[in-house]
Formats: sequence, C-alpha cells, structure tokens
Amino acid sequence: MNSYNTEDAVFALATAWAKSAIAVVRVSGEGCIRTLSKAVKGRLDINSLPGNSAHYCTLVNPSDGRIVDDVVLTLYRDGHGYTGEEALEISCHGGLQVIRSVLELMANLGFRQALPGEFTLRAFLHGKMDLTRAEAVNELINAQGRTGRAMALNRLNGALFKRISAIKAIIVDIMSTVEVQLDYSDDEIGEDLTFPMAKLDNAISSLNAIADSFSTGRLYSQGARIVLAGPSNAGKSSLFNYFLKEDRSIVSEQKGTTRDFIEAMCEIRGIPVRLYDTAGFRDLSESEIEEEGIRRSRSLLEAADIIIYLVDSTDTSSIDSSVVSDPRCIAVLNKADLRELHKDGYLNLSVATGLGFERLCDEIASRLTSDVSTSDESALVIESERQKENLLRAVHALDAARSAVLSDLPLDIVSMDIQEALEALGELTGEVTTDDILDRIFGSFCVGK
Amino acid sequence: MNSYNTEDAVFALATAWAKSAIAVVRVSGEGCIRTLSKAVKGRLDINSLPGNSAHYCTLVNPSDGRIVDDVVLTLYRDGHGYTGEEALEISCHGGLQVIRSVLELMANLGFRQALPGEFTLRAFLHGKMDLTRAEAVNELINAQGRTGRAMALNRLNGALFKRISAIKAIIVDIMSTVEVQLDYSDDEIGEDLTFPMAKLDNAISSLNAIADSFSTGRLYSQGARIVLAGPSNAGKSSLFNYFLKEDRSIVSEQKGTTRDFIEAMCEIRGIPVRLYDTAGFRDLSESEIEEEGIRRSRSLLEAADIIIYLVDSTDTSSIDSSVVSDPRCIAVLNKADLRELHKDGYLNLSVATGLGFERLCDEIASRLTSDVSTSDESALVIESERQKENLLRAVHALDAARSAVLSDLPLDIVSMDIQEALEALGELTGEVTTDDILDRIFGSFCVGK
Repeated sequence: MNSYNTEDAVFALATAWAKSAIAVVRVSGEGCIRTLSKAVKGRLDINSLPGNSAHYCTLVNPSDGRIVDDVVLTLYRDGHGYTGEEALEISCHGGLQVIRSVLELMANLGFRQALPGEFTLRAFLHGKMDLTRAEAVNELINAQGRTGRAMALNRLNGALFKRISAIKAIIVDIMSTVEVQLDYSDDEIGEDLTFPMAKLDNAISSLNAIADSFSTGRLYSQGARIVLAGPSNAGKSSLFNYFLKEDRSIVSEQKGTTRDFIEAMCEIRGIPVRLYDTAGFRDLSESEIEEEGIRRSRSLLEAADIIIYLVDSTDTSSIDSSVVSDPRCIAVLNKADLRELHKDGYLNLSVATGLGFERLCDEIASRLTSDVSTSDESALVIESERQKENLLRAVHALDAARSAVLSDLPLDIVSMDIQEALEALGELTGEVTTDDILDRIFGSFCVGK
Repeated sequence: MNSYNTEDAVFALATAWAKSAIAVVRVSGEGCIRTLSKAVKGRLDINSLPGNSAHYCTLVNPSDGRIVDDVVLTLYRDGHGYTGEEALEISCHGGLQVIRSVLELMANLGFRQALPGEFTLRAFLHGKMDLTRAEAVNELINAQGRTGRAMALNRLNGALFKRISAIKAIIVDIMSTVEVQLDYSDDEIGEDLTFPMAKLDNAISSLNAIADSFSTGRLYSQGARIVLAGPSNAGKSSLFNYFLKEDRSIVSEQKGTTRDFIEAMCEIRGIPVRLYDTAGFRDLSESEIEEEGIRRSRSLLEAADIIIYLVDSTDTSSIDSSVVSDPRCIAVLNKADLRELHKDGYLNLSVATGLGFERLCDEIASRLTSDVSTSDESALVIESERQKENLLRAVHALDAARSAVLSDLPLDIVSMDIQEALEALGELTGEVTTDDILDRIFGSFCVGK
C-alpha cells in the first residue's frame, strides 16, 4: 500500500474467486455512480436513483455495446456505504467468466483495482470505525472457531474501543492532576503532591489484563496445531477420522495427499484445531522419492503445539523416545481393547471402542489452555500482536511514571511517561497513526474488504 | 427435488463456501421479512421498510440475544426478487464461522435449506423466466470460456426463446390451415388441399439448424480435454507451461500433484481447454506405489478429446505406437531447435524457441471445430442436451407430417404429428412441463441459485 489516496474510485471482487450462484463486486469513491451509469443499458438512469436502493439492470461495455451481465446494483450515497464514501455493489452471476468480464468492465471504466483492505482502510480514514474495529473486521473473517468468532464480533461492536477509552479517561485524569501540580512553583511541590497512585495502579492492572488476554484470543482465533505421530499401524488415521467424526462442526475438508500428510480442521472442547496425520511417513523412508514428504512431516512436528504420539499397545517395539520425551508430546497407547498395558506417562485409548477418547480430549484442552484466562465467548480478549505491543508499551510507560513518583523524580518526567502511555493507546485505537502502522494493519486483509 | 412446494420460505448461501470479504445468504418466500425481523437487533423495524432497499443492521439469535453478525439486508417485496416472491439478501462478513452462524440462524428461524436450483425454479414457476432462460442461468455460471459465456448470456436474454416462439408461430399457422381443411367434409379434401409445404420445410430447417448448434455450444461452454502424453524428458511439462504462458486468460490454477497429473484451464483459439500433463508417469511404473497414478493417467487418456503425443526429436527410441495411431492423437517432435527431424504425420515443435507452436494451436483448433458451425459469440447456439432432444423430437414429428401429406394420408394424422411438434417445443420453453423435467433441469444447478 504505497499511498493512502482516497481521491479515486476503487473496485474489487468481494466474494470468493470460485464458481457460485452469485458474486459481488464492490466499487467505492466519489463519482463512481455517475461513471458506472455509462455502462447501464437502456433507459434506467441510476444517477437519479436514491441511496440504499437495489436495482436489476443490464451492464454493457460502453465501447462496443456488448452485454457484460444482468446484475443487481445497490447504490450507496452520501457516505452511507461501508467506506463512508459514495459506493456501489454489483451482484452478478457467479461464473468465473462472468466475474472476469465484470472486473474487466470496472477497469475499462477507469476504476482502480483496490489494494488488500482498502475498503476498510477508507472506512477508517473517513471515521466510520477506529482501528480496533477495523482489525476486528479481518479477525472476524479469519476466525477459525465459534468462540474466536464471538470474541472478534465483540471487538467489532466496540467492546475493546470502549474499554480502552475508559482507561484512557482515567489516565487523562491522572495527567491533569500532574499538570495542575506542575503549574505550582518548584518549592511548593513535594508537600502538596497528592499523586493519584491508586488510579495509576488501577490503569496498569486493567491494561495488563487486556494484554494478557492475547494468548486466549490467539488460541481461540488461530487455533492450535496438533500432529498425530507414531509408528505405522498404531492407528493414526483411525484416530484422525475419529476426531472428525466426533466433531460435527468441521469447517474444512481434509486436503493434501496421504503420502505427505492429511490436514483437517476440527474443534476440541471449543478450541479450533488444525489436525495433521503424518500417515506413517516413517515406512516410506526407504524410498528416495519420499524424502521431500519426510522433510515436510518433520517441519510439521517442529511447528506443532501438541504431538499425539500413538503406539500400538500390542507392539511397543518401535517407540521413538526422542518424540515421547518432547514436552509437547501426549503419549498414547492405542488398541487398549486388545491389550490393556499400563505404561508410565501414557494414556490408554481404543479408537475401536472410543474408550479413553474423552480423557485424551481433556488432556489436549488442559494443555492448550494452561496459560489462557477464559473460554467465555463474550469476554474482552485481543488477538492482535500490534494491540498487545501498544498495551505493553502503555503499561511500561505507566510503570516508569510510578517509579518516578516513588523516587520523587521531577513531575515533568512523570508527565512525559504518562504522555507516552496516552500515545501508545492513541496508536492502538488509531487516533495517532502513521502510514507504516496502516500498512501493517491493512496489508494483511483480503482484497475486497 | 421431491416436491415443488413454494409455500414455505427457503434459504441458501449464494456465494462460495470460502473465506472472502463478504458472503451473501438468500432467503425467499412469502412472510420471510416478517420472520427475519425477529432477529434484527434494536429499533430498526424492517417490516416497515420499502422493497428494493438495503439496510445496515445487526442480526441476533432471538433465543439468547447473542449477536450473529453485522450485515446489510436487502429487501425485495411484491415479487420483485429474483424468485418472483418476497425475498431477502443478507450480506454478511465472509468468514467461514460467520457464514455458518448466519446459516444456523436461518434454520433456527424456521426457513428451509433450499434445494439446488430452487431459487431459479421458483422464478420459473412464478413466470419470471421460461425454461430456456432458466437453463441459461446455470449455463452462464458454468461457462468455461469467453465465447461460451457470451452465447449463454445471449440465451439468458431470451434469444433462444424468441427464435423458438417465432418458429412455433409458423407451425401454429400451418396447424390452423390443416384444421380449417379438417372442418370440410371428407369428399371435399384432396382437391382443395393447399398444404403450406414451404412453411413446413422452413420450420424443419430452422429447428435443425438450432439442434445442430449443439456441438458448437457444447465445445465453447464445456471445453475440450487435451492430454499431454509421451516418453519422459520429451518436454511435456515445458509445453504445458508454454500453453499457460501464451494464454493470458487462465481461469484456474493448476492442481493435483506431479505424481499423478497436473491440470489447468486455458483457451486455445477461443476454445476453453482443460489441459492435462501426465508428467512422465511411465518412469514410475517400476514403483508399485504409483500404480494408482498410472491407472488414473490411463483413464485420462481414454477421456481425452485430443492427445498431444510429444517425442524428443533427439531420442525417438521409445515411441508408443498404440497412442500415436489413435485418431485423436497429434504427434509432435519436440526439440526441433536441437535436431530437425522430418517424420511422416509428426508436427515439428520447439518449446524452447516457440517454433511450431502456432501451427500446433491451429491443428488443435481445426480438429476441435471440425463439426462446429460458428465461433461467433453472438450466434444463437444451444448447449443443453434436453433442448437438443426436444428440437429433434419436433423435427421428427414435422418430418412425419411432411411424409403423411406427401403420401396423401388423412389430415387428422398430419394434425397429430404437428401437435406433437408443438408439444415438444412447449416442453423446451416450459409451457408444458412435468415434475420429471423440472427435476432434471434444476437438480443440476448449484445451491443458492
């Protein structure tokens, strides 16, 4: 995102690039309705239509009069669009060739292809939302589980912004007390200083609590990576399928090939989990052609949050102790229905009968949530690293102010520290921004949002 | 599709089930706005809003008050929706979890999940479009190339319906002449018979011309399958990539693994082509694990419209003559820049320099269009097997009428034949339909359309 020009009109496909019943192309920018009116066939004059209205019409290429598609146009006037600008939504037939033709028409009309996140960026620049809400838009779209979705929706509706604003009000209050004192002459300071330390402590602990919610937010939004490993014939693929069968809320199909690994999304105790089955890659190590597959499986293991190491209880001959001793590893003796073996540090499981499966899920959830504060989906929780950094910067500055007060340092130093905290929070909500910050935030969005 | 009940309200995701900026859920059926109003948060009363208007609002689950998403609702009243019924479009955030929540809300509100094509079926049943237009909706969405898209759009805009109606008017005219004659007494027939044979011949040849356009329509809409085969190191993958590089209008990415085959869509001389690279599967035949891959490559070859058999001109030792002798095969000597070999029935090509590539494209296009009547994208062309069957049924009946007239058979027989032709055309446009026909047509649609 090189420049934050909002003078021109931009367009993008807002729905997925995939065959479907309908697709939606968004256009935003002053004058876009007048420009598009050149491509509307027949007597319908969209220039005279009111905002927030939807109209069936035929789009044609103005250069040759050829029909592009029959569409429904929704018009937004007077800043009532998502972006806070005049805007258009074109609902066209959802064929790939149709989508391509509509996008080509937009380019031919002189609209510019929108950059990732540019619609939401424009909404932010026009004051339609603060940065915490803008980030929540993207977090909501990317949410992997129900709880993560609810938490993002909470932020989208301003919960985080309101909480930060309330804490900022306290800090501003502290600041004004300090500034009143600064107005006194030097020799009056000291005896008259009544620094509101309780308020400061309160602000610090409130900010810390929000920063601490990052690991919770991250877990519920991004999910955890669980890799199934172990000797072949231990039942890894059966366990993989058992997880998917038990969780009726699978969000994506498994993909990849069994030669490398299979991957699927599921939820375990409300936590979104990306599950990987390495499908006995060890057997294939003889074959040179599989080396790439093994390399990939190894890197999966390295990135795992939890490794479930599955062993056949009737054949414990080939246990890889380097994996079992990994602190992320949950060692499991499968086929407990065939042979009940008790081995220290191993859970017993029978995928065939389901015995021990609930226990395994409890163990997974307990490990994943060990440093997580809540699973309440209405809780105020953050998942943005940027927000966490700003919160910690504010905490750090307030801590410094606290030390300065306790060490009887001059009040201008205290004032500067508090100012720094206010700036960090202003950056968090977007009152203070630089192009760099905006780049970092909106560059990670999908196009069309 | 078991029943054509249009009494209830149905819903479906109309955009793709994939992460994107926005997603659209459609609802159609009388009373759907009132039902949805229970889930709209706050003071906004959508029951009092006019049709064809769009409104930003928050949807909540009426049972627990939890927020589902912030959405834009577009309302359609008095049959102005796509279906000809009261309808709603819900534009929500395009996250998979969000889409799931909105769909769950729809089910909780008592709406029924729409069957494939049910929205278009309802549009047909409410007289918003005839069957040729309804089929064109699906054909447009599935169009693989530019020409196919333009041809489908032509039908969607009623070109086929108007043509059929004009021919039907001629046949009705013939029918009325016959009926007038039937009103005369038996002994008057014969001398007074002035059967409009020229009109009949005209109708037959018009219908035949449309039926003949089927192969053109099929080619431009569905495309052709071209398989690259030949010994390894002949340059198959290079040629595959060259095709994709030359055609800037690729509609889908390559997928699959090199172990089986790679697949990509491109256009060759305006014809959509699905290109398969079998990637030297012969080398891997030693390895038992590749058997499935070979089996799949073999079935690719069987289903191919054209096989490009690529041979390295510097090493012609391992040519599979059973493939080269296949009538679908275009045999090509690659690496003509290294060694210019002249071999009967082989084209010379150098993927490295591009030499011979245009020649190869010409040969492909010439073979694919050998039984195709036109590439004019504004031509009236059909691609539906059902339409072709009905056209041929009408032609057959008119041919029978013609023979009957020439053999001086009684006019009631002529009349019955003409009636049969009119029924076939009525079925084509949907004036005469049975549940079976509707099942066949709309069952092939995607859900949400």
